[in-house]
Formats: sequence, C-alpha cells, structure tokens
Amino acid sequence: MKIRDINITPIALSDPPLLSAAGRHQSYALRLVVEIVSDDGISGLAELPGGVKGEAALREFAPRLDGHDPFDFNRLDRLIDEHFGNPQDTDPFASSLGSTASKKEANARRRKSHVRSAFEVACYDLIGKAMNKRVADLLGGVVRREVPCSAYLFFKYEGGGGELGVNKAPGLTGWEAQRQEAALTPEGIVAEADAMIKAFGFKSIKLKGGAFDPELETNAILALRDHFGPDMPLRFDPNACWSMETARKWGKIMGPALQYYEDPVRGQEQMAELSKELGIPFATNMCTTALADLPGSLRLGSEQIILSDHHFWGGFQPCMTLAQFCKVFGRGLSMHSNSHAGISLMAMAHLAAATPNLTYAVDTHYPWQREDIIVGGRYKIENGNITLPDGPGLGVELDRAALDRLHKQYLAAGIEERDDQTEMRKFRPEFTATPTQF
Amino acid sequence: MKIRDINITPIALSDPPLLSAAGRHQSYALRLVVEIVSDDGISGLAELPGGVKGEAALREFAPRLDGHDPFDFNRLDRLIDEHFGNPQDTDPFASSLGSTASKKEANARRRKSHVRSAFEVACYDLIGKAMNKRVADLLGGVVRREVPCSAYLFFKYEGGGGELGVNKAPGLTGWEAQRQEAALTPEGIVAEADAMIKAFGFKSIKLKGGAFDPELETNAILALRDHFGPDMPLRFDPNACWSMETARKWGKIMGPALQYYEDPVRGQEQMAELSKELGIPFATNMCTTALADLPGSLRLGSEQIILSDHHFWGGFQPCMTLAQFCKVFGRGLSMHSNSHAGISLMAMAHLAAATPNLTYAVDTHYPWQREDIIVGGRYKIENGNITLPDGPGLGVELDRAALDRLHKQYLAAGIEERDDQTEMRKFRPEFTATPTQF
Repeated sequence: MKIRDINITPIALSDPPLLSAAGRHQSYALRLVVEIVSDDGISGLAELPGGVKGEAALREFAPRLDGHDPFDFNRLDRLIDEHFGNPQDTDPFASSLGSTASKKEANARRRKSHVRSAFEVACYDLIGKAMNKRVADLLGGVVRREVPCSAYLFFKYEGGGGELGVNKAPGLTGWEAQRQEAALTPEGIVAEADAMIKAFGFKSIKLKGGAFDPELETNAILALRDHFGPDMPLRFDPNACWSMETARKWGKIMGPALQYYEDPVRGQEQMAELSKELGIPFATNMCTTALADLPGSLRLGSEQIILSDHHFWGGFQPCMTLAQFCKVFGRGLSMHSNSHAGISLMAMAHLAAATPNLTYAVDTHYPWQREDIIVGGRYKIENGNITLPDGPGLGVELDRAALDRLHKQYLAAGIEERDDQTEMRKFRPEFTATPTQF
Repeated sequence: MKIRDINITPIALSDPPLLSAAGRHQSYALRLVVEIVSDDGISGLAELPGGVKGEAALREFAPRLDGHDPFDFNRLDRLIDEHFGNPQDTDPFASSLGSTASKKEANARRRKSHVRSAFEVACYDLIGKAMNKRVADLLGGVVRREVPCSAYLFFKYEGGGGELGVNKAPGLTGWEAQRQEAALTPEGIVAEADAMIKAFGFKSIKLKGGAFDPELETNAILALRDHFGPDMPLRFDPNACWSMETARKWGKIMGPALQYYEDPVRGQEQMAELSKELGIPFATNMCTTALADLPGSLRLGSEQIILSDHHFWGGFQPCMTLAQFCKVFGRGLSMHSNSHAGISLMAMAHLAAATPNLTYAVDTHYPWQREDIIVGGRYKIENGNITLPDGPGLGVELDRAALDRLHKQYLAAGIEERDDQTEMRKFRPEFTATPTQF
C-alpha cells in the first residue's frame, strides 16, 4: 500500500465573534482538509488549522510522499526533517523553546508540526480503513468509548459569524440562538454556559479570558461557581496576557474555584514561579508545547497539567509520548482545541479514547461552529461526550459536496491568514494583542 | 481476531561457563517460549528468561488473555496491573526504584515486566503475521535493515556447557573451538575476541568484567585496545560489583580506551557521582531499568547512555518510550542482552531496526549459544550485523521438533532457576556474589 494522491482543500467555517487575548475571531475560521489516497483507492483524512502559508508548506512537502508507505512513520519523520530542517536534533540539550522562542522560531516549529500531524493522522485513517480497525485500536486500544469534553465559554460580541457577520439570524432557539448573543458580563457568561450545557450536557467548564478587565473576568468565574455549585469543574485561561501582578492578584481570588489555572502568565519561568506561589494546579498549552519543551518544564516545574493537541504536537505519536511523560513524571493531561470541523473532532476523540491517563475532559470549539465536511453533518455531542464511532479509521467519511461548498466559502471570504487583532481593530481601533495586556 | 490458545514451553540452551559478578553460568540457560494462537489459527511468538517462578507467573496470568484482542495493548496493561498490582501508579512522584529497590521489589517489578513483554511481543508477531507486515513496520518503520551488534566477551572457564559440561568437544575449529577454551587472562580475552570477530564480523566489543581482580580486567581492556587499535569501540561492564574507589581507580586508567563504562558502581547516586568525577560516558542497564526510574536518572544524571531490553522494560512499547525520552533528554541508547535463542534475537532486531536513535551497537549473547528453536536453525550474524528477515511478524517460525528437544533438555537439566552463585561454588566454594566484591 503506497500513497498515490494527496488532495489539500482550504475551507472556511462560519465562526462567531469570540474574544481572546489575540483579539476577535474573524467571521470565518480557516481549516485545511487533507486527503491521501492509496494505490488501492483507500483514502485517509486529516484536518488542520488553515491559512495560505500553512497550505503552501503542505503543498510544497506533499510531493515527497508520492509512493510513501503509510506505515513508515520513521520515513515520514526523516522526510519532514529533510524538508523543514531539524535544529532540535543538533543540540538536544538546547533550552526550551517554549519560553524563549522568537515568533519566527515558533512559527517554523508549528508549521513543521502541522505538516507532520496532517500526514500522520491521514496515514492512521488510511491504515485503519485498509485493516478495518479504528484509529484508537491502532493507538493502543479503546479505554473509553465516551470521550468527555468541557464546555468552552468565550466572552463574545453579538453575531453569528459567517455570512451573518455581526448580525443575528432570526427565529432560532436554544443554543442556536444563544450562540449569536453577546456575552460581555458575568451574567452573559452564565447564560452562555446554561445554554451550551443544556444543548450538549458538558460536565466541566472552561472560560477563555484575556479579553476584558481581569476583575470582570474573575467575577465571571465566581458567577459560574455560584451558579453551578462546587461540583462543576471550572478552568480559566487568559492566554498568558496577564502580568505576574494581575495573575497573582486575581489568581488568589478565583483560585479556590478553579480545577486549573491555564496559562495565566507567559513562559515556563513565570509559570513556575507563580504556580509555586499560588499552590493551585497550573495548566499550559503555551509554555510547554512540544517534546523539546519537556526538559525545561521539568527543570522549572512550569505546570502540573499539559494540554496536548495532535495538530500542534505533530500528530498522535508525539501526543502518546507526551502521555507517557505525564505518567512517568506525574503530570496531568488535558487536550487543547481550536475552531474546527468533524475530522479534527474525530482525531481528538480517537487519541483521547486510546490515552489511559487523559485526566481531564478535553477542550473543543465544536459547539461554536455550525457547518461540517463529514457525511451525516454535525457530529453529536451528548451528555458532554463524543461517542467514538464504530467505523474503521477515524470513523468518518468526507462529504464532498459540503467540502466543495466550504471551499467556495473560503474563496469568497478572502481571508489569507487568521488575524484576530485586525478583526478586533475594525471595532476597537486602538486594540493591540500585546503579551501583557493586563 | 482474538487469542484462543497460549502455549508456554520452558527450554534449556547449552551455555558455556561464562563468568560475571553473579558467578558462573550454569551448563544450561533457561528460556521460556510463548506462543499465542488466534481464533483464525495464526500464531505469535515471544521468548523470555526462564525459571519456574517466571513460568508460574506467566501461566497464572495467561488465562486472563482468553479471547483478548491482540491490538488492545491498553487492555493488556490493565489486566497486568490488575493481576500484579501497580504500586507505581499510586505514587507517581515516588523516588526511583533503580537505586533503592529491595531484591523483592525488583523481582516483582521484573516478573511483571517479563509477562507484559512476553504477551506484547507475541501480539506484535501475531498482528504482523495477520497483516503481512514486519514487526518493525508496526513499530514505526525500518530505519536500518542491518542491525549492528557488539562482540560480547566474557572471562570464562574451559568447557562448552550443555551435555559437554566443563569438557571440550574434540575436532572443532574456529569460533566453535574457541568457545570451549578458557579465557582467564588478557591474552585469553584477546584470543576470544579475535575468534569471535573473525566468525561474526563485529565492529565493537563489550567485555563483561566483575569476575576477577580489577587490575587483570583493566589489563584485558588495555590489551584489547592495543590489539585492535583506537578505532575499535570498547565497553566494559563489571555489573556494579566494584566499590567507588575501585571503579574510580581503574576507570581513570581504562577510561580513555572506553566507548562507555557500563555500571561500574551500584545505584543512581553513585553512578552520578562517579560519572561527574571521571567525565567519561557512563551506561546502565542496572540503575535505570524502567520508565519509573527516569525521574531519578534525570534528577541525578546517573548515566549518559541507557541500555534498553524489551524483556526487562516490559516490551517494545516501553522501549520506544525510552527511545523518545533519550531523544528529548539527550541520552544515548544501546541494548542489553541475556543468553537467548532466535526469537529474542529477532525481537531485538525488529526493535533496533525501528529505533532511529539507537546510537550504539546492541549487545547479544547469541554467539555463545549453539542451539535454536527457529526454523532454519541458528540465525546468521555477518559483518557484525543481524539482517532483518523479510517475513511478516518477527520473520521466524517455531521449529517444533527443536522446541521439543530443548524442552526435554530442560526437563533433564533439572535446573529450576538461574543461579550463577551456586554454580560457581561448585568450583570456588568460598564465592559470594556480594554487591561490592572488588
């Protein structure tokens, strides 16, 4: 079985105006859909964050996989190292990139990880389909068919995104209506949580912060605590845009309400310092984001919980290595998400299903999107869980008509790269996404 | 595909009177051959160190795998944890067992690892045979078809082992003759090395020490250096039976000649201390012998090179995790061996073939044995390499007549457990295998 064809399709998913330290989500979230086709006509799928630079990197690398054996992940690694270079290998003792990487270094690393992830995941899907095995079976076996997810709350402006832009579609009810509402206050966040939990049954809550005054965001956490009571796990994540003083001050107040405090400050050093001081669990998907960051994480003790993400860590295999690391070194393990469609959802579900020590419900933006590219349309999240599908590989097939529609939507949207700052400046011209906004 | 039958066969392999800190090899080395058979009649093989206690542990556990899906390694882990207990999981921050484990703890851990290894390896062989894939393909892909091995030299008494006992069979030439000769002096070791290298083409040499006076053993290393010149990598391993003073004194003298100094002293603390002092590469298969030992290894810096062993680490998967650890934390990686037959040789070869950062030639006792249980008989080592076979799974089949013969040999030998100390006392009644003999 060899790879014969590779199809890369950029798509745009309607996305509401969610807020974070980076700014405001654009009306469309860009994704790339990767399909590899074997010489016996079986196809394997993957999905990853979009943008013209990432797409170009994928397209430049793809011809190297002509005739590639999908089982040969060591060869995939070699080809990727040859293509993108491998500075980490030349100095295995190099200090963590997590805290000191320039934006250029971080982008180069991310590009390489995304490309590996795309083809590794697609190869697993292909192998699974060829062998009539679920991807989770190939990753070591299903330890949970129901993968628990966390409600992922955002402060947001009014509007549904996509062709609606900042407007609301009329006549909707429940979560469909709530998704279009503004959430700019603690009460707004509680209303958002109520509607999302009613629709999807989530049993834990993450609030993305970093958008407004820390006092308001802290009050939103306290309001969620009041509303849902002490048994609802709560997480708060200002994307490292808080200063040490801000994170210390509000961390002391919201700390007792939190399951974990995610990336309150920037870099492994600051994370380690504040984590020791506050004595509450710290989580990260920003300061420890690759296997090469683990030595620094251990040396400093920058966090107690690491959020994996098969897109950012370079595929399932690095995430499985991370899981082993977490087991051996006593770290907790959760999972990060970006705005995504059903292929990413399934990849996350298979990885989570096969990871015994996934100790926290996974993040997912999925409720915020309303379009999909998989046959059957939007995948159901019920009782807060993704139920692993029974089919081989990732268990989903590409809806080619939907793919075509969302590709046309991408072409019409005219967005080249995600840029939350520029989007925000349309509404708040003075906005700048600085590392320490608060 | 489910497991339907499990056959466990103890065998005895003729073994010459090799010497180490533990004493003298008995006339037979015990091994266990494990065969799992699927409901569609495909079988998977594994081999591991023998002995009645290990055999009993395997037999007690085996019924739990009735109907087991060989792909479900997470379930295998769960069943093994249920059966053997899992103290490591209850305290992930527990300090390393490597340096502080009691003999009882170490034996319990080893028993559990052996059982996991046996069934994990057999499942990989079964899956490979069912899917027409080599085990190395299932482990990530072949990075080297030729797996380099090191000549494994021993001080030894005269005799060929097995039914020959301490006697020599007449009329043999080359390595077959040399294998029966005594090697009790530097000159004897050089003669052994010459014959072994002429027969197998090894391009690096390991000398097992810990048997005689450190000065004599150091002189053997220096004689090898003189004889083979500076380009022949040399390793020396007294199995941690040297005191700090002894290891310091002779390490300074033989150090410049060594590729690495393997387990000169006992425990991660002493290894770390002496390693810093001598500034030459230290290797271990004694103080860091499980994933649970890695935190201590990192904290102390006990060695620069870790010897994996799929039998002792619990199978291929923990060894692959170890390889990732070595890559991320800048450790070198080699491979340990015990007296073994062709199934273990093949398992070692597939693991080595699929491990990109295996940075040293692997140890193997294989030249010291002369019987086997695989179809075709003894596997050839040429130019110092094991050539990975092309067949599916491990690439070897069980020779049932040979298995039966070596099982009868086991029954006739009357050995219950490996006991090099008792064997040595037959010849040197005062011998005791203490932790610090020299």
